[in-house]
Amino acid sequence: MNTYDLIMKKRNGGVLNKDEIAYIVDGFTKGSIPDYQMSALLMAIYFKGMNAEETTNLTMSMADSGDRLDLSAIKGRKVDKHSTGGVGDKTSLIVGPILASLGVPVAKMSGRGLGHTGGTIDKLEAIPGFSTSISEEAFINQVNTVGLSIVGQTANLAPADKKIYALRDVTATVDNISLIAASIMSKKLAAGADAIVLDVKVGTGAFMKDIEGARALAETMVSIGKLAGRDVTAVITDMNEPLGNNIGNMLEVAEAVDCLKGNGEARLMEVSKVLACHMLIKAGKADNEKESLEMVNRVIDDGSAFAKMKEFVSAQGGDATCLDDYSALCKTDYSYTVTGKDLFEATSFDSTIGYLKTCDNQEVGMASLELGGGRRTKEDVIDLAVGIILNKHLGDEISADDTVATLYANDEGKLKAATKRFINAYSVSDKKCDKNPIVYEVI
Amino acid sequence: MNTYDLIMKKRNGGVLNKDEIAYIVDGFTKGSIPDYQMSALLMAIYFKGMNAEETTNLTMSMADSGDRLDLSAIKGRKVDKHSTGGVGDKTSLIVGPILASLGVPVAKMSGRGLGHTGGTIDKLEAIPGFSTSISEEAFINQVNTVGLSIVGQTANLAPADKKIYALRDVTATVDNISLIAASIMSKKLAAGADAIVLDVKVGTGAFMKDIEGARALAETMVSIGKLAGRDVTAVITDMNEPLGNNIGNMLEVAEAVDCLKGNGEARLMEVSKVLACHMLIKAGKADNEKESLEMVNRVIDDGSAFAKMKEFVSAQGGDATCLDDYSALCKTDYSYTVTGKDLFEATSFDSTIGYLKTCDNQEVGMASLELGGGRRTKEDVIDLAVGIILNKHLGDEISADDTVATLYANDEGKLKAATKRFINAYSVSDKKCDKNPIVYEVI
Repeated sequence: MNTYDLIMKKRNGGVLNKDEIAYIVDGFTKGSIPDYQMSALLMAIYFKGMNAEETTNLTMSMADSGDRLDLSAIKGRKVDKHSTGGVGDKTSLIVGPILASLGVPVAKMSGRGLGHTGGTIDKLEAIPGFSTSISEEAFINQVNTVGLSIVGQTANLAPADKKIYALRDVTATVDNISLIAASIMSKKLAAGADAIVLDVKVGTGAFMKDIEGARALAETMVSIGKLAGRDVTAVITDMNEPLGNNIGNMLEVAEAVDCLKGNGEARLMEVSKVLACHMLIKAGKADNEKESLEMVNRVIDDGSAFAKMKEFVSAQGGDATCLDDYSALCKTDYSYTVTGKDLFEATSFDSTIGYLKTCDNQEVGMASLELGGGRRTKEDVIDLAVGIILNKHLGDEISADDTVATLYANDEGKLKAATKRFINAYSVSDKKCDKNPIVYEVI
Repeated sequence: MNTYDLIMKKRNGGVLNKDEIAYIVDGFTKGSIPDYQMSALLMAIYFKGMNAEETTNLTMSMADSGDRLDLSAIKGRKVDKHSTGGVGDKTSLIVGPILASLGVPVAKMSGRGLGHTGGTIDKLEAIPGFSTSISEEAFINQVNTVGLSIVGQTANLAPADKKIYALRDVTATVDNISLIAASIMSKKLAAGADAIVLDVKVGTGAFMKDIEGARALAETMVSIGKLAGRDVTAVITDMNEPLGNNIGNMLEVAEAVDCLKGNGEARLMEVSKVLACHMLIKAGKADNEKESLEMVNRVIDDGSAFAKMKEFVSAQGGDATCLDDYSALCKTDYSYTVTGKDLFEATSFDSTIGYLKTCDNQEVGMASLELGGGRRTKEDVIDLAVGIILNKHLGDEISADDTVATLYANDEGKLKAATKRFINAYSVSDKKCDKNPIVYEVI
C-alpha cells in the first residue's frame, strides 16, 4: 500500500477500504505520511466525497488514534451531548445540571472557542477558581459523586483529528460533511459515552447554512453512531441569530443561571429542554418527550437544577457564590447601546417602525470576538467579561429609540470596531417578518 | 493576499488573476508557501481547471522564477523543438543536425529520462567523451560556429517548475493539461527561442492516451505561446508503439545515425522530417512543406546532415568515430530474441500466422527500464548499452519463428524480467490490422 496510489484512487472517484483508511490515519498521525500528501488527499475527498462506510471507517480510525476514555467506573447509562457550534450557544451549561439533578451521569469533555463560535471550556473558566483540567480519576470520581463534570479535551483523545483538523484549517478543506462528521464523531466515540445527542446547528452563524446540509451532516453522524454501536440522535436547531440574549463568556454563564432559575429567553429554553428531554429518554429515565419534559420542568421549578449547577461549580474549584450575583464579573470599562436608529441609519431605512429581518450571525459572533471575547488563533488570550446582550430578536418590531443590544468592552477601539460589525450584521424590513422555527427536525 | 483564500477561490471554481498566480508561484518557489498548501491548491486545480489566461499567467510566472537564457548573441532566427516524451523518440538527434546543416541555429536544452520515457541528454552521454554540461558562453559559441549545441537544463531555468513538478509527482496531480502545458512551456519560454515546434505524443506510451487530450494539450501550449509572443506550432504524432526500431540510449544514437544516412525506419523518418520541415518554415528558410521537404531530403542524401552530426559531437568532446561503428558501444553480455511463438504462447493464440494488434507502449518503455536503460528515481544510474531492437511493428504479419524483437542486457535477471514485461505488452490478432497513422494533426 502506498499513499500516492490512495490519493489517485480517491481522486479518480474510488472507494477507500478499511485498511487503506487505517493506513492513512495511522501514517499521518505518526508522521510517515507527509502533510503535502494528506492535504492533496483531503482536497480529493472534498471533491469526490466519502460514502457512509468510508466515513465510518475514517471516524473509527481517528477514534482509535489515541486513548479512549474508559467510563465503565461510572454507574448508569452515560449520555453525552455535542453541538456543532454557534453564537450564544450555552446549552451544555444548562442541560448538564438538569440531567445530573435527575440522576443521569454527565461526563463531558468540551472544547474552546475559535473564530466566531464560543466554547464551553472558556465560559466555565469565566467563573473564578473553576478548573477545567482535572485528572481523569478526579473527573470520574466527580461524576459518581456530583453527577456532572465538564473538562477540557485531553491531548491524546483522537490526536489524528487534531492533526487532520489543523491541516484542513489551512488548506480550505474544512467544509466537507464526511470530514466534519468524522472529526466530531471520532472525539465523541473516544470520549466513551453510551449514547449521544447531537445538536446540529443550521443558519448564518452555523457551519451548515441550509437545512439540506444540516440534515446530511446529522444523518451522516447518526449513521456513524449506528455502525459504531452507539445510540445517537441528532436535533437540528436554528442558528440564524444568536441563541438566547447573551454572547460572551461570563455573560453566557449568567444567562445559563437565569435559565436554570426558569427565567431564560424562550428559544434558548426550548433548545435546552429538547436536548435534555432526548438525553433523558436515551438514559432510560423517561419513556417519551411528554414525561421527560415534566421531569425537566420540575427540576427547574423546584431549584434542584440550579443547586446542581452550584454543586458542580464548587466541586471543580469554582466560586459558586458568583452564580447568585454575577454583576461584578460582567463589568467592563466601556459599553455602547445599539438603538433602532443605528440600524435604520446603517441600512438607509426610511420608516419609523421596522422589523428585524435577517442577521448575519457569523458577523455577530465576529463582533463578540472583536470585543475581545473570542480567538482568531489558538494562542489569543480572551477577555472573559466582555460581550453582547441582545434585547431584540429576528421578527421583533423596533422603533428608533428601542435598544436592540448593548455591547460591552474594555477597549474603546475594540468597542467601536465591534459595534460597526454588529450593526452591519442586521437587515430591517418595513413589513412584519416571521420568526424562524427553533427546532427544525429530530433525526 | 493570502494562500488560504486563493485555495478556497480555486476550489470554488474561481479564476485566479495574474497577481494571485504570481504570488503563489513566487511564494512557493521561495518557500513562504508550504508544500501542504501548494498540494491542496494543485488538487483543486486538477478538479476545477484553469482557463487559457490563468494557464498563460502560470506559465509566465514559472518562466520568470529563475534565469532566462539570452540567445541574442546567436545570429538568425532560433527555433526550438520539444517532445512531450515517448518510447524510442530520438527525433532531436536527427532533426538537430538536419536543421544545422541547413543553416538554422539550434540551441537546445534537453532533459533526462524518467520512468518509461528516455531523455536526449542520456542518449548523448552514451557517446564516449560527450559533455552535456558546458558553460553558457561555450554553448552560444558552438551554436554560432557549428550551428548546433544540445546541453542539459541548467539548475536555475524555471526552478518553480522543478519544485512544482516534484510535488505533483507525489500527490497525484500530474495529469492536468494546464499544469502539463505550463511545465513544458515555462521551460521553453525561459530557454529563449524565437519559435518552437512541439511534438505532442498520443497513445499508450504517451502522457496523453487519446487524440482529444493530445489536441487539448497542443492547443493550450500553442495558445500560451501566442499570448507570450512566440511562434509555436504543435504536431500530434503517434505513440501507440515505440518510434522507430531501437529503444535504449546508445541504440537510439545508432538509429539516429542510420536515419541521418537515409536508412531510417519509415515512421521515425516521417516524424523527423515533419518536425524538421515545420522548423525550417518557422526559421524562414522555406515557404512551404514541399520546399522544406526537398531541403531536408537533400542534406540527408548528400551526407551533410550526418557530417553535421559528427561535427556537433566532436565540438562537445564526443568521439565522433563511434558514429561510424557503434557496435562496440551496443555490446551487452546477454540477449534474448523474442519470437512470434513467444507472443502466441503468452496470449494463448492458436493460429500459425498472426498480426501485431496492440502494444501497451508504456510497458515496452518499462521493459527497457527493467533492462537497466532507464530510471525509476532521479538517482538511478543507467546502463547506456542495453535496450531493445524491434523487428516488427503494429499491423505486421508474424509467424511463430519470426523475430519480433531482441532485448539486450548485462544482467540475466533483469533480462528475464524485462522480456516477460515486453511480451505481455503486445496482443496478437488472427485478422489483418490497420497500422496507426504516424502524424495525426498539426496545430
